[in-house]
Amino acid sequence: MPVRTPEWVKDAVFYQIFPDRFARSKRLRHPRGIHFKPWGSPPEEQGFQGGDLLGIVDRLDYLQELGVNALYLNPIFQSAANHRYHTYDYYRVDPLLGGDAALRELLQEAHARGIRVVLDGVFNHASRGFWPFHHILENGGDSPYVDWFYIHGWPLHPYPPDEKTPPNYGAWWGIPALPKLNVANPGVRDYLLDVAEYWIHFGIDGWRLDVPEEIDDEAFWQDFRRVVKRANPDAYIVGEIWHDAQEWLQGDRFDGVMNYGFSRAAFGFFGAQTLRTDYKPGGYELRPLDAPAFARAVAHLLSLYDWEVTQAQLNLMDSHDTARLLWTVQEDEGAARLCVLFQMTMPGAPCIYYGDEIGMSGASDPYCRAAFPWHDRGQWNEALLDFYRRAIALRHRYPVLRRGDLRILYAQGQTFAMLRHLGREAAVIVFNAGNQQATLRLEDLHPLPEGTRLQDVWGEGRDVVVQNGSLSQVTVPARAARIFMAHP
Amino acid sequence: MPVRTPEWVKDAVFYQIFPDRFARSKRLRHPRGIHFKPWGSPPEEQGFQGGDLLGIVDRLDYLQELGVNALYLNPIFQSAANHRYHTYDYYRVDPLLGGDAALRELLQEAHARGIRVVLDGVFNHASRGFWPFHHILENGGDSPYVDWFYIHGWPLHPYPPDEKTPPNYGAWWGIPALPKLNVANPGVRDYLLDVAEYWIHFGIDGWRLDVPEEIDDEAFWQDFRRVVKRANPDAYIVGEIWHDAQEWLQGDRFDGVMNYGFSRAAFGFFGAQTLRTDYKPGGYELRPLDAPAFARAVAHLLSLYDWEVTQAQLNLMDSHDTARLLWTVQEDEGAARLCVLFQMTMPGAPCIYYGDEIGMSGASDPYCRAAFPWHDRGQWNEALLDFYRRAIALRHRYPVLRRGDLRILYAQGQTFAMLRHLGREAAVIVFNAGNQQATLRLEDLHPLPEGTRLQDVWGEGRDVVVQNGSLSQVTVPARAARIFMAHP
Repeated sequence: MPVRTPEWVKDAVFYQIFPDRFARSKRLRHPRGIHFKPWGSPPEEQGFQGGDLLGIVDRLDYLQELGVNALYLNPIFQSAANHRYHTYDYYRVDPLLGGDAALRELLQEAHARGIRVVLDGVFNHASRGFWPFHHILENGGDSPYVDWFYIHGWPLHPYPPDEKTPPNYGAWWGIPALPKLNVANPGVRDYLLDVAEYWIHFGIDGWRLDVPEEIDDEAFWQDFRRVVKRANPDAYIVGEIWHDAQEWLQGDRFDGVMNYGFSRAAFGFFGAQTLRTDYKPGGYELRPLDAPAFARAVAHLLSLYDWEVTQAQLNLMDSHDTARLLWTVQEDEGAARLCVLFQMTMPGAPCIYYGDEIGMSGASDPYCRAAFPWHDRGQWNEALLDFYRRAIALRHRYPVLRRGDLRILYAQGQTFAMLRHLGREAAVIVFNAGNQQATLRLEDLHPLPEGTRLQDVWGEGRDVVVQNGSLSQVTVPARAARIFMAHP
Repeated sequence: MPVRTPEWVKDAVFYQIFPDRFARSKRLRHPRGIHFKPWGSPPEEQGFQGGDLLGIVDRLDYLQELGVNALYLNPIFQSAANHRYHTYDYYRVDPLLGGDAALRELLQEAHARGIRVVLDGVFNHASRGFWPFHHILENGGDSPYVDWFYIHGWPLHPYPPDEKTPPNYGAWWGIPALPKLNVANPGVRDYLLDVAEYWIHFGIDGWRLDVPEEIDDEAFWQDFRRVVKRANPDAYIVGEIWHDAQEWLQGDRFDGVMNYGFSRAAFGFFGAQTLRTDYKPGGYELRPLDAPAFARAVAHLLSLYDWEVTQAQLNLMDSHDTARLLWTVQEDEGAARLCVLFQMTMPGAPCIYYGDEIGMSGASDPYCRAAFPWHDRGQWNEALLDFYRRAIALRHRYPVLRRGDLRILYAQGQTFAMLRHLGREAAVIVFNAGNQQATLRLEDLHPLPEGTRLQDVWGEGRDVVVQNGSLSQVTVPARAARIFMAHP
């Protein structure tokens, strides 16, 4: 089967938003008598700080200026959790977020600016407030929905008296709040597929799929793709899979996955000196890598999938499920910048976790979910923000950075270089993760013709020229990168 | 304040439907894998027999032939109870009933036939599956909805381990399944009023209000009326109040109440010989009445309210909350027929509980909630059905029976007569609840002119003529009625 992924994803720079914490809009009228936690409350405190979808609309200028052209939103359907992974109504946007009307406005305003919007689909489990589960809770075996879940005994005890009592129904990780849906039941299947289709018709541009491996049913995900692509052939389907995922990316299920493997490689190389190796995002080890090991990791990532898929990966450094980028490298901003530049020069859609660009830091959940400090610009790292803007702009300026072929040119010590090539455009990208300036000779630059002049479009160094099939005396300052561009 | 009630209610004959048990439509496509109890299962078994709103549409011919021109439906919003008094979503019709689409079709088809549709509004309490309650359950005091209910302690235990543990939140009758809404919270108030308005705009013709006295807040109900009447000045608002309700019927809250007082008077007189006096519907005693006592009861009912209100009362004999008419008089069909004829000749809108017309009987809940035996016409009392049709047709034929003034003419032993008068139309209605034929003289027939000829439009007796201001020698067979009509 020929693999096809959406063209727009190859050109996308995503921005991930945790809706309760990104921005609160003054325009949204909540029910009278509703009180939120103060904006900027410590994220370790549970509760709702009142971010909403109109808040995102209000910040589209900011996002556009940053260079973002796609949003991935954590779940927005009705849920009694501030992260909203515990869905109780799949057909409605949570009223605290502004309801369906706010999503409609967000889609209109975002689309008017050429910004796509991808939602988070949580189809493995619902919440104990989801109506068919409530129906069973109230009616026991008399409920017509009794087969929508995996019931092991009566009466159900969804609110057990203590943490030792396991739920007597299938639940994600045994968490009573998250009863697992029985997708073997054709009614459940129809329901979930209808949800998937409904929101595509509503206007969203794709689905990020939560814990899809928990639905161990190939046909379900094939049906899912058919339904979604029939509704919009350009819709993006990206699965939350933390490891190599060849079987999921053969063209019949997902377009890409959340590329945590990408982040582990980048952390290992660019963060080698400062990495928190005691922190294991998603249970996976972070290990310092020298350039040869990094090159092997990059080569491995590139070898896994069809090139169509590689270009449609979601290349992220962090998310709501991990510590933030800066925290993971112990606030080593230089390492963080190199990671971001690597995102911006690799195939696959970079994804920025909200606030990283202004220097927000924080350990894993709940610390990575703080409120964006719109209220206190003094907290912003303006220089870092400028760096993000420039790096993103660079990616947008040069198609070769998005779609060009990739060949590793050099990997020694702490220096890594790659060649990207697309038609008459080519880029030579050199990263120096070490503490000393590096001077290196890059060979085997085919298909660049002899005499090709490459302009340094990132650093301030001089242009270089291909001579004898090589670039000699390429210097890269410590903890920096050079991006040399040949373009017509 | 001048009292105004909807004109159409004065001409209405209601039919109350318990949706899970009235009719199942073959046209409704349920989710795959949904199973109902067999239609006609013993009503004492819990669970769902699968009646739905398209089932009602499918039976509109039957209802129209019966003479019904208004429906009162027990609750239809999303609920995990077969009676659906435990609402979990006020903005959606239950999917088992066919969802919003089925209600839309029912409203279109009913309205096309001149049949109004009144829904049951349950605003005092929701269910423990109602999303703001679920929100509190999941978030405790961190939920922005914490003031939507009356929380007395943490953690909430909505599913207590035994029946002795009272809920630690306000609940109707202390039933954990029914958390009481805090209408003092302006957000809750706005929410409920919006629900009221939403469905009126959707096209319903009024609200029957469940346990309204539990919302001890005059201003709430005044606001409720304003909102509903602004959306549709012709909407009917009828409260479930089992006793005299003068304060509720001054024109600023309800148009009428469920007139259980009417039923108690009728049972007492027409069912005097067979009444189950050990049965107390709603906790109220049923007592045998002779004609003078019955006349006092009727006079009392007429004295309670403005004439506008009296004409807009919902005159019922039974409901989902009581035993059925026939059961209450120990299957004494003669008594039941007289009760029905009394409904059809009194001011106020008669309301027939589904299936009474074909002789369905049954003690109080759950026995009064059996499935309508469409599947077995052998169970139908066809003669009784014919009686209902004729009695209803009579009411429709003569405006005087609906809107005429009423004066009691006679009340002795077991015989009761009344005069109704409207313009040039007049009716003399005589009920004989005794076992002997009665012959009586009716006097003081003003304003009927001397020589007025009244036609016997119900029995087979001869016409009668007003002579010396009286009707002499009026004979009424045992357990029967005569309806003499003077019309131009």
